[in-house]
Amino acid sequence: MKLDVKEIFDGDLIGKEVEVEGWVRNHRKQKEFGFIDFSDGTCFNHLQIVYDDKLSTFDEISKIKNGSAISVVGTIVKSEGKGQSIELKASDVKVLGDCPDDYPMQPKHHTREFLREQAYLRPRTNLFQAVFRVRSVAAYAIHKYFQDRGYVYAHTPLITANDGEGAGQMFQVTTLPLDKLKGEVDYSKDFYGKKVGLAVTGQLEGETFAMAYKKIYTFGPTFRAENSNTKTHASEFWMIEPEIAFCDLEGLMDIEEDMLKYIVKYVLDNCKDEMKFLDSFVEKGLIDKLNRLVNSHFTRVDHEEVIKILKEADVKWEFEPEYGEDIAKEHEKYITDYFNGPVFIKNWPKDIKAFYMKQNPDGKTVAAVDLEVPGAGELMGGSEREADYDKLVARMKELNMSFDGLDWYVNLRKFGGCYHSGFGMGFERLLIYLTGVDNIRDVIPYPRTPLNCEY
Amino acid sequence: MKLDVKEIFDGDLIGKEVEVEGWVRNHRKQKEFGFIDFSDGTCFNHLQIVYDDKLSTFDEISKIKNGSAISVVGTIVKSEGKGQSIELKASDVKVLGDCPDDYPMQPKHHTREFLREQAYLRPRTNLFQAVFRVRSVAAYAIHKYFQDRGYVYAHTPLITANDGEGAGQMFQVTTLPLDKLKGEVDYSKDFYGKKVGLAVTGQLEGETFAMAYKKIYTFGPTFRAENSNTKTHASEFWMIEPEIAFCDLEGLMDIEEDMLKYIVKYVLDNCKDEMKFLDSFVEKGLIDKLNRLVNSHFTRVDHEEVIKILKEADVKWEFEPEYGEDIAKEHEKYITDYFNGPVFIKNWPKDIKAFYMKQNPDGKTVAAVDLEVPGAGELMGGSEREADYDKLVARMKELNMSFDGLDWYVNLRKFGGCYHSGFGMGFERLLIYLTGVDNIRDVIPYPRTPLNCEY
Repeated sequence: MKLDVKEIFDGDLIGKEVEVEGWVRNHRKQKEFGFIDFSDGTCFNHLQIVYDDKLSTFDEISKIKNGSAISVVGTIVKSEGKGQSIELKASDVKVLGDCPDDYPMQPKHHTREFLREQAYLRPRTNLFQAVFRVRSVAAYAIHKYFQDRGYVYAHTPLITANDGEGAGQMFQVTTLPLDKLKGEVDYSKDFYGKKVGLAVTGQLEGETFAMAYKKIYTFGPTFRAENSNTKTHASEFWMIEPEIAFCDLEGLMDIEEDMLKYIVKYVLDNCKDEMKFLDSFVEKGLIDKLNRLVNSHFTRVDHEEVIKILKEADVKWEFEPEYGEDIAKEHEKYITDYFNGPVFIKNWPKDIKAFYMKQNPDGKTVAAVDLEVPGAGELMGGSEREADYDKLVARMKELNMSFDGLDWYVNLRKFGGCYHSGFGMGFERLLIYLTGVDNIRDVIPYPRTPLNCEY
Repeated sequence: MKLDVKEIFDGDLIGKEVEVEGWVRNHRKQKEFGFIDFSDGTCFNHLQIVYDDKLSTFDEISKIKNGSAISVVGTIVKSEGKGQSIELKASDVKVLGDCPDDYPMQPKHHTREFLREQAYLRPRTNLFQAVFRVRSVAAYAIHKYFQDRGYVYAHTPLITANDGEGAGQMFQVTTLPLDKLKGEVDYSKDFYGKKVGLAVTGQLEGETFAMAYKKIYTFGPTFRAENSNTKTHASEFWMIEPEIAFCDLEGLMDIEEDMLKYIVKYVLDNCKDEMKFLDSFVEKGLIDKLNRLVNSHFTRVDHEEVIKILKEADVKWEFEPEYGEDIAKEHEKYITDYFNGPVFIKNWPKDIKAFYMKQNPDGKTVAAVDLEVPGAGELMGGSEREADYDKLVARMKELNMSFDGLDWYVNLRKFGGCYHSGFGMGFERLLIYLTGVDNIRDVIPYPRTPLNCEY
């Protein structure tokens, strides 16, 4: 009976004969025995395979190298060793795919930098096996959260002629032969007949769907051609952008809080072994941190009040907090400490926020909200959207924005517009928070950063 | 109590007072009564709202235009009209967002071409409300199928220096200032320091994850810069590419068949009203067709046998079927008719298939398989992968392929390689099959085709 290792751990199979196929993670040989640390990747825990010299093939088995693919037939028995409750006593071991001595993933410590260079092999290590399983389960949790609540999943376009919110540098997409260009470019000859690039957001198109389905979300790749080499920036990453009609800023915060707690709890419940490993070896106290979030109360406070608290704080700031201005990382940290938990900072100065945000009656602020989470910083950013046609148009003119190609977006306010809100969450930021891994390059299978596009 | 229309239809609320927010799809006024065909997009069916001249605001309500956003307070009552079991007797109706008379989505027949031009409004029509709900639910069914079975969802990169299987024309991605280029391009100055483009497949990277997790799938956007203006081609579309280690061609067909039946059944079960509409107005017999698939047996037959059947058929072909060659649409149709159901055509001539497919012992064919579905044509294409290092290298040399940037792919055969298989399914092809809508432009929210990149 061919089984996944996960099925063996989940089942009650002591005394049963089974067959498994997978890889040798570590092979320890003794004179009369051998132990194979075996993984087929279907669960985090490895199965120990034991064989002894009563097997006629003992000598051949002894020679099997780390990294090899093997199939094993044997009997599930109680383990007397520590670290596992059951093991597989082999009656037959076959090599399916050999592995040479220069295999880079030998069972020893590797630096994360080295593993990044070997990105195609790193999911075979415990660390990345855990991280990318969490990535998969967290992605599913997001879909499940929204689908169970009747949201429609909208695939917004990646190639676009809009620069979205104007928030990010765009990559250009073209089929023109670059080596034959001279001076002014004739875009009528390009694939789409105009200049296009990779989307920095799906929000604007998302709003069009919210005006038909009430509750929608996007979950897809997003691009920024920013030349920043930090631990938290990648030029290709995944974003979730829910958009909800008939929802105001308070309602939006309810959704953000509920969703985040759901995802965190789902990962804790469905990646127990992975999270235990990450808690032990990557971020001590990780599971506690996440459980605290699930049980915490999210504070809601105005930006102005935040600045007041920061100004009154007995702290020597690197960046002086100012009314009307953005806040720095040091301020974010102080504020979540101050309130001892996640904080929604709302009603931001309009001049530092995007054109589509709802203008508050005070004439100075917009109904925007950033969620600050202890140990993660800003995890989500959202707003109520400006639903008033005249106010939106006036703001766009004030900012010298072109209406070219955005007429449809403005028209949403004309054709049965309504109050509505949405937010964006960078998926990798969430993963950094969930796994304790502190570099975005280590939560993306094949990260893209300036001058780096391997695989 | 504010409720979604879906909650009202799902609940038992007769006699209860509720509040709803949504849009006027149609407004019929009589002297003493008015009927509003009301949708909030949370379910396919509309709620009928009735109001009468006992309301002091009767005259104002009578003036509400099609397309307007409104909020309604009222009591759920049994409906005496036909077409619905309950309706909402209004006590208060407020306009949240007006809509002018030149609103393009008036309740009358619109051509699909017109609706494509108004893509941002078309989800408000019954047809597209149904199609994009099915898209969302089908996407979730795919995630659910794989996650429930322990597959890891892998996000493969979209920007890449590889041309994948060499199967499709690639878009180039750049941050170079095109109007300043002259002659030979210095890619060391480009964002990634080399020439890159948009991925045509995630399979190769997917294989690296299958070698660590055994069972993985991708589900993300894919790009083809092909200048084809057909009903089934878009330059940006979504693909699902599962990859399974320790799985041969027979095992792969088991998975393809099981997955397809699961998705179809899931959509039938979870989009009942949408499917009923599509069955009535788009493709008569759609639900029967899909139920037949769920209950059908998928035939498995060699390519060679298919050609023999075609040659022996008493049919005058436009394209003569030939051993060693691909088959045409007319042949696909004949074969699914012949076997009266879906057909896996396997073991294809190696010269017309990709380099990574497992070479069969006959030296002429590869272990590839295409799934032909009645009414859909080729829905999936897959293969067992060549696991033998020497054979893979020899084939790549034979095809004059460069190993540059593909060393890691070849190395998968060296470092514990094993037999493994995978397939690709174009998501939009599946949607065309599921909805009966015959143009790919009508199953993608904002389709991208040559010279067309609106929104």
